[in-house]
Amino acid sequence: MDWQQIFATRNSRMAASEIRELLKLLDQPDIISFAGGIPDPDLFPAQAFQQAFADALSPENQATALQYSVSEGYPPLRDWIVGQMTALGIPCTRDNILITSGSQQALDYLGKLLLSPGDTALVGWPTYLGALGAFNAYEPRYDRLDPETNRSAEDYAQAAGEGRVKFAYMSVDFANPTGRTLDAGMRERVIDLADELDIAVIEDAAYQSLRFEGEALSPVLAREIARRGDINACRTLYCGSFSKTLAPGLRVGWVCGAKEVISQMVLLKQAADLHSSTINQMAIERVATAQFDSHVAKIKEAYRGRRDAMLRALEAHMPAGVTWTRPEGGMFIWLELPKSLDAAALLASSLRSERVAFVPGHAFFADGSGSNTMRLSFSRTDDVMIDEGIARLGRLIAAAL
Amino acid sequence: MDWQQIFATRNSRMAASEIRELLKLLDQPDIISFAGGIPDPDLFPAQAFQQAFADALSPENQATALQYSVSEGYPPLRDWIVGQMTALGIPCTRDNILITSGSQQALDYLGKLLLSPGDTALVGWPTYLGALGAFNAYEPRYDRLDPETNRSAEDYAQAAGEGRVKFAYMSVDFANPTGRTLDAGMRERVIDLADELDIAVIEDAAYQSLRFEGEALSPVLAREIARRGDINACRTLYCGSFSKTLAPGLRVGWVCGAKEVISQMVLLKQAADLHSSTINQMAIERVATAQFDSHVAKIKEAYRGRRDAMLRALEAHMPAGVTWTRPEGGMFIWLELPKSLDAAALLASSLRSERVAFVPGHAFFADGSGSNTMRLSFSRTDDVMIDEGIARLGRLIAAAL
Repeated sequence: MDWQQIFATRNSRMAASEIRELLKLLDQPDIISFAGGIPDPDLFPAQAFQQAFADALSPENQATALQYSVSEGYPPLRDWIVGQMTALGIPCTRDNILITSGSQQALDYLGKLLLSPGDTALVGWPTYLGALGAFNAYEPRYDRLDPETNRSAEDYAQAAGEGRVKFAYMSVDFANPTGRTLDAGMRERVIDLADELDIAVIEDAAYQSLRFEGEALSPVLAREIARRGDINACRTLYCGSFSKTLAPGLRVGWVCGAKEVISQMVLLKQAADLHSSTINQMAIERVATAQFDSHVAKIKEAYRGRRDAMLRALEAHMPAGVTWTRPEGGMFIWLELPKSLDAAALLASSLRSERVAFVPGHAFFADGSGSNTMRLSFSRTDDVMIDEGIARLGRLIAAAL
Repeated sequence: MDWQQIFATRNSRMAASEIRELLKLLDQPDIISFAGGIPDPDLFPAQAFQQAFADALSPENQATALQYSVSEGYPPLRDWIVGQMTALGIPCTRDNILITSGSQQALDYLGKLLLSPGDTALVGWPTYLGALGAFNAYEPRYDRLDPETNRSAEDYAQAAGEGRVKFAYMSVDFANPTGRTLDAGMRERVIDLADELDIAVIEDAAYQSLRFEGEALSPVLAREIARRGDINACRTLYCGSFSKTLAPGLRVGWVCGAKEVISQMVLLKQAADLHSSTINQMAIERVATAQFDSHVAKIKEAYRGRRDAMLRALEAHMPAGVTWTRPEGGMFIWLELPKSLDAAALLASSLRSERVAFVPGHAFFADGSGSNTMRLSFSRTDDVMIDEGIARLGRLIAAAL
């Protein structure tokens, strides 16, 4: 059977993600991995999860925990999230929250909700490669979202050709992959641009809770509510996740936005997987209620130390001509190498001779540029191994120059 | 903001599922519900799940259970499923299995894999309404799969117009909604038809393990392997689920098929939600290994008793002119009422005056016909309430005649 000729056209856009393929390498014990956006498992609140799952499976709760549940999500978890959102300047109600299986699923559903083939998605150059993967299934065109330039709304609209610009997607705090944070002025300009284009804004806040220093910037959605007075009049859809704060293996995230959008997304979710795991939503709600703030404070302390170790190591070991970001939080540092270097080729030789893993940057560019960039994650490696890994990488880069 | 004008075209096909809306009624204690395909929570192996989650969260396993994992699924669970498939006459390897978040997600991914807008899906009249919901997102046309007629492949192909027929979808054993089982001859004819049309076959086996009596029929995929000698040369994609046997709240199902298809579906899953919950896959693997067969024997005993009670009650209480199926397993009985009756209108009055819930049959027809049909589930109601509920329903129908 020739499967290729009966696959839908979208499959030509679906390729293996380098990050996921690299994940498979992490099992090899001699690799120093700066790849993946992977939390350190030693920092999981495992004991709290033991209690939470035991409680969810207690005689009084087990019939609920193991049964089908509503597509919208477990009401007490949605209520807990309402509290978090409100504290961030996003007053809302349970009807503004949809629980998803990680924020990756939120991106998939938002692509499904908004993109017909040929529509345009505005994304950063670079941007989160998992967002490109999710959106690709709906066969969009991409254009570069660059609020720092004075490019006009008219120009964006014209470049969309026969489709229509549908949304601007951004990771706003300590972005994956760059570690950069969008400043207040740029956040306001994105709302202006979205108003002019009459499009949605997708605010990916996966790393927002992991701020090590500096003052928190209020989310795009909070700024839009401040302008319009009501979340239900807003165009921004905020995507949150418990994967970086509590644990990714349970696959629990959420979307917060106008009721009209959330209720349409509930229909999409109902048709796509009925609902996210009931027992996992119950466990997350219990752990979050018991210790979200204290646990996040603890992991931020650990990750801050590793960021500092990596910045020190880069300073000590990188040859001249290499530059990098200094993130105020999150898990990533972004390197720019001299233009002559190709990070994908470097990765191949690094895995062979140095046994250090990272993600070549070009995968984060919708236009395939960025071959001289790379993403380093400091989240899963201790200070000694960070120094050792960066020293090896510095040697490799110096030798390639 | 006018959201309707930026939603993708597919949203016009997404409507609220009557089943899911009805689910919300189940919380009202005075309703006798024959709606939903909902397992009886008293039959969940809750103690086994307590042990399984405790083991998954033990010090040696917790770092795995709470962490990201590969998109293909937890290898020991895939291996367990390989054993089950092989016992059903489907020899295969781990690479033929993708774990999904319930078989509903498998249907969504198969629609995503195969359907471009305007392509044709062949489905039963009636068919599982969740399959229609999943496929609708990919904007197909539907045509009636009816292997009992002599309709030619040419005729199916011609009816597809400018698109192409992509697959035939069937629930084969004690189907949702009819409770009917496709006989051996019809199974073979579907393979013949698929060969002639050069299309895929989607075999939905969600209820297959719940056979109360009679001899098991070998799956369509097993028959195709018998013809071709190798699963990787087959066009049938088998969708399995733990929702009806162990518990639906964990959202664990699978697809079994040719490697080439599974590896493409892994890419779709990676882009859509990264992977299904790690800890839930570990828990299912442990419970399945410990007691799948003995647990399924136990629930079949219970459900058989309820089917018998419902058949007795229908015999006792239904007026002349009403007919129904006699399923050999599963959870459903299908009623045909005299043509003059409308089951949706009956449901409205039933909820008002009789407090009995069921699913009107028309939602299961891609062409919206079947207004004089209804689906009854016997899975969640004890014998006394079954008799009482069917007696009330019989009175209501008799009064409407």
